[in-house]
This record gives sequence, structure tokens and C-alpha cells, in this order.
Amino acid sequence: MKTIEKSADFQSHIWDATSNDPLKIEELLREELTESQGIHEEICHHLLRAGGKRVRPLLVYHCGLLFGPETEDLKRTAVAAELIHMASLVHDDIIDGSDFRHNQPTAHLIWGNQRGVLAGDYLFAKAFGILAANKSTQPLRLMVGAIQNMCRGEINQDREQFSSMIGIEAYYDRIANKTAALIEASCMAGAVVAGANPLQIEAIGRFGLNLGLAFQIIDDILDLCGDEQKMGKPKYTDLIKGNLTLPVILLREQPQYKEWLREVFQEKTITNSILVEIETAAKDGGITERAFAIGVSHLDQARTVLQNFCDNQARKFLEGLTYMLQARAN
Amino acid sequence: MKTIEKSADFQSHIWDATSNDPLKIEELLREELTESQGIHEEICHHLLRAGGKRVRPLLVYHCGLLFGPETEDLKRTAVAAELIHMASLVHDDIIDGSDFRHNQPTAHLIWGNQRGVLAGDYLFAKAFGILAANKSTQPLRLMVGAIQNMCRGEINQDREQFSSMIGIEAYYDRIANKTAALIEASCMAGAVVAGANPLQIEAIGRFGLNLGLAFQIIDDILDLCGDEQKMGKPKYTDLIKGNLTLPVILLREQPQYKEWLREVFQEKTITNSILVEIETAAKDGGITERAFAIGVSHLDQARTVLQNFCDNQARKFLEGLTYMLQARAN
Repeated sequence: MKTIEKSADFQSHIWDATSNDPLKIEELLREELTESQGIHEEICHHLLRAGGKRVRPLLVYHCGLLFGPETEDLKRTAVAAELIHMASLVHDDIIDGSDFRHNQPTAHLIWGNQRGVLAGDYLFAKAFGILAANKSTQPLRLMVGAIQNMCRGEINQDREQFSSMIGIEAYYDRIANKTAALIEASCMAGAVVAGANPLQIEAIGRFGLNLGLAFQIIDDILDLCGDEQKMGKPKYTDLIKGNLTLPVILLREQPQYKEWLREVFQEKTITNSILVEIETAAKDGGITERAFAIGVSHLDQARTVLQNFCDNQARKFLEGLTYMLQARAN
Repeated sequence: MKTIEKSADFQSHIWDATSNDPLKIEELLREELTESQGIHEEICHHLLRAGGKRVRPLLVYHCGLLFGPETEDLKRTAVAAELIHMASLVHDDIIDGSDFRHNQPTAHLIWGNQRGVLAGDYLFAKAFGILAANKSTQPLRLMVGAIQNMCRGEINQDREQFSSMIGIEAYYDRIANKTAALIEASCMAGAVVAGANPLQIEAIGRFGLNLGLAFQIIDDILDLCGDEQKMGKPKYTDLIKGNLTLPVILLREQPQYKEWLREVFQEKTITNSILVEIETAAKDGGITERAFAIGVSHLDQARTVLQNFCDNQARKFLEGLTYMLQARAN
């Protein structure tokens, strides 16, 4: 995979921005979750300790600061976005039966499915409680729409499992719903709270959508060709579950692999050696580079959108984020 | 248990009101859920077919009609209340590991926990999407508060399981959160949408709270002393899970049962013969009647609240509902 120029610079730039985080997101999350009790308190603290990149609240915050000053509503909306993300992760890990995330055992592995379900519901309700206190209801509507899309994305994924005929369009539809919807809604919600006009809100939504698509495409490449140690989670999870992702769809377009992949998916038992064969074929055939280039094209589109806005610290942060994401695949 | 005067009359009165339902709740629910796809469509249709008393939407609707005309917002809010209830049932059945509800296998038994979790999330999001389209955000805030309380109720129940020292106060706290909160919020949301003033909203909340408490108390009595065939679900579920309910708390106050019940709960293995012994002790010692009288006292309080409002068809329906609930325990 080609090395991205300036990526190291940008990575350290963002790293600073996150560690000197003016939003103080960890503190805000802790504050919100201190009033949780009993088993919920334990689960919430486990989720907080497990960490995460806090991309969604940082997006809400900085997309807001593109258009207006820091306000309580903006900070609240940022916190709500992360709580929705946390809730969906807890439920997703139950749905997918995942045992590890960020190198930590998942909540349902420690506390069981039952308590995991409840913890997710609690976090969803917390988030909506916070959003309902905002002056505008639009951020709430945006988040509701995103959750509905996330559920739709999971349904589609479920329906399409082990179907080797999934094309690029169905793939885009799935990742737009599953991943990009909440990122898009987070960016738009920040802009709405900061008083952006409809054209600006639409534009920042396009930034978020492209960022989200790139995020998932790169994640899918790493799931096939990444380093488990660096990622903190096992790879090949998509293939094992029968989810066709971009690199595999591109590989299937090569005549010599088409029939083989069809059979592999039909059999539904994908052995370890087949997984390694698919990874090798994708790497050797230049497929991962092509998939990566598609991901980067979405980051380019996201950066183009940002050029419409005034060049302040918030825009620098958002630009930096796109480069950091790009560097992640190296 | 004493027979309630006029109960048969009131039951048939409500039955008519429900079957000639002016709200057409089944139709509205079907409309809302038709756009669901794939596995969600199947689960939603299963949930619709499984039926239910649709108490919460009927409460939203008739509490609204106490104060104003039928509007789209009122009907929408009614539908949202039932979707929230349906979502919480799907998740509760997973949390409790229940296999049957309304004589039908539960969703997670047919489709697995994973899809059950997702179906619940989808229904929650649907409900909030509907509420976010309302002119006022207060119904949404009320429902968010109710869901948070429902989660708290489940946490408390979880924490208190097999603790034989639970008193009447902790019991009330639990059932107020677990059951009465959503019923209270439904009544208040209806009144809010119909333009009731703050005093009226507070009063209708008191009606809902007392109705909800009575509902759960009678449910708890039936779980110990009811007829499985009539209820459509197995009994003794609370004792088996180690949940102390009102009749058992009252039984524990009798000196001759205190030590025995303490030991039974400490052992955590409650055999079938012990379950029958507890039921018999509660029936013979007049405990079920005392518990029932407490439930009825809440229905009396609910009816007292209603006398403050003008005597229209909606008030008649709500009064009838309290008598129908009372007759349920006979």
C-alpha cells in the first residue's frame, strides 16, 4: 500500500488535538454516566475505560465550531453522539457475537447478553434525554434517522450474508447505513446547533457521508489485510460471517477468482487457509491498493467540501482527521 | 378474592370500546410497520399478530380526548407509545429469557437473541422518529424519561434478586419504574398533545401512575395465584427469578413465614412444591386479598383524579379501564 505523504505529520497534529481536547469529551462522558447505578455503572465504566477514538463527538464539536462559538447545546450534542455510538457498539457486539473490541473483552462477554441489551437501551435513552434538552429538535431527528439507517444496514447485511452476488451498489448501500449515517448525522447536528444555514448543513453532511464511507472502506481493507496486533481485534471477521466487502467484490471481478469465490461463499465454511489465500490474492493482484484508492477518493471529496468554509482551527482539525484516517491504512 | 360489583358490565363496556376502537390502533400500527424489511418485517408482523391489550395507545388517545379534539399528533403519539412498549417487551423477553407471551413464542425464541436486540432497537428508533415529528417536544421528553426509568427498574430488580430483605418501599420504587412510568408518560403525553394546562397534565400523570401501580400489583398477584390458562403465560416467574413481589412481602410480615421465606430465598433453588406452598400460604392467610385491596386503592385514587375532568366519552372509557383492570383479578 502506498505511503501517504505528510501522514505522520498529520497524525501527530491530530494526536495533539485529541490529547489537548478542548471539548474534554472523556470528562463530559464520565459526568453523564456517573449517575448510572449498579451493573450499569460497571458496564458504563468498562466502556469508558475501553476507550475509543471519540470521532463522532469530535466531529459534532468541530463541525459546530466551523459555523459558531462553543455552546452548551453543542457540547451536549457531542456527548449524545458518542452515547449513541456506544449503545450501538454494545448491541452490535451481541448481534455479531464479537468477544473483543479495542483489545478489551466486550460487555456481553463479561456480563452476558441480557445485561448488554439493557446497557445499550440505557445509553440510547440517555442520549435522547440529552438531545431532548436542546433548543432545536433537528439534532434529535438527525440522530433518530441515523439509528433507523443503522438498523436497516444491519438487516441488509444479515440478508446478504453468504450471497456471492452482492455488487458494489449493495455494498455502498450497506456501509452508508451501517457506518456513514451516524457520522453524517453527527456532522450535520453540530452544524445545526451552531446555526449553520441549510446549504451549509447539506454540505457538511456530504463531508460526513464521504468521511464515513472512507472510514468503513478502510476498516474493511484492514479486516482482510491488516495487522491484528495494531487493530486490537481479530481480522477476517467479515469473510467468516459471510459479508462481502469492497476488496473481495473487486477480487471477484477478476475472471480467475470469480468461480472460486462463488464456491467458497456457497460452501459457507471458509477455512483458515482459504482466508489467507483470499488475502494473498487481494494483495498480489493490486486489489487492496485499488480499494484503498476508492477510500481515498472519498476523503478527497470530504476535503473538497471543507474548502468552502472559512479556514479556522476547526477546519484544520477536520482536514487533519481525513489525513489521519488515510494514514491508518499504512 | 372478593367479586367486584359491576365488573362484568364494565368489562363488556370496555370490550366494545376496544373492538369499535375509534383510534384504529391495529391499522395505524400495521401502517407504521409495513415499510420494515426482511427479518424485521417478519418479527414486526409476529409481534402484531401476537396482539396485546394496546393499553398505552388507548391511554394516550383517551387522555388526549379529555382535553381536546382528535389530531394527527395525538394519533401519532399513541402509536409511538405502543412501539416503545413493543420494543421494551422484545428486549425484556431477552433479558428475562421468557419463551412465551400472549400464548405465543417470543421473538428471540424464534429468531434468536441477536435479531431480537435489533428488532427492539428498530422499534425504539421508529417510535422516536414518530415523536420527533410532533409539534411539541414534551411527549418525546416524557417517553425518554419513561425509558430511562424502565431501565432503572430493571437494574433494581436485577440487583435485588434473591434478597429476602426487600421492603415495600423498594418494591414500589421498582414497579413505579418498571411498569407505571410508561403508563404515566403515555397519559401525560396525550394530555400535552391535546393542549392541557400544567395542572391538568400533573393530575393525569397521577391517574396514570396509580393505574400503572395497580396494573403491576394485580399482575404480581396473578403471577403467584392466577390461572396459567387464562393468562396465557406461565406463573411463579417472579419467585423463580428471585423477585420479591407484594404478596410475598406481605406474607413475610407474618411471623410464622418470615424465617422460612428468608431461607427459601437464601438457598436460591425454589422447588415446585415450595412455590405451591407459598401460593397456598398466601391464599389461606388472606394475603392475596390484602394485596388486591392495595391494588384497588390505587384504582380508587386513579378514579378520584378523573372526577376533576368533564364527564365525556373519554372519561367514561378511562373509568371503565380501571374497572376492567379490577375485574382481571377475579
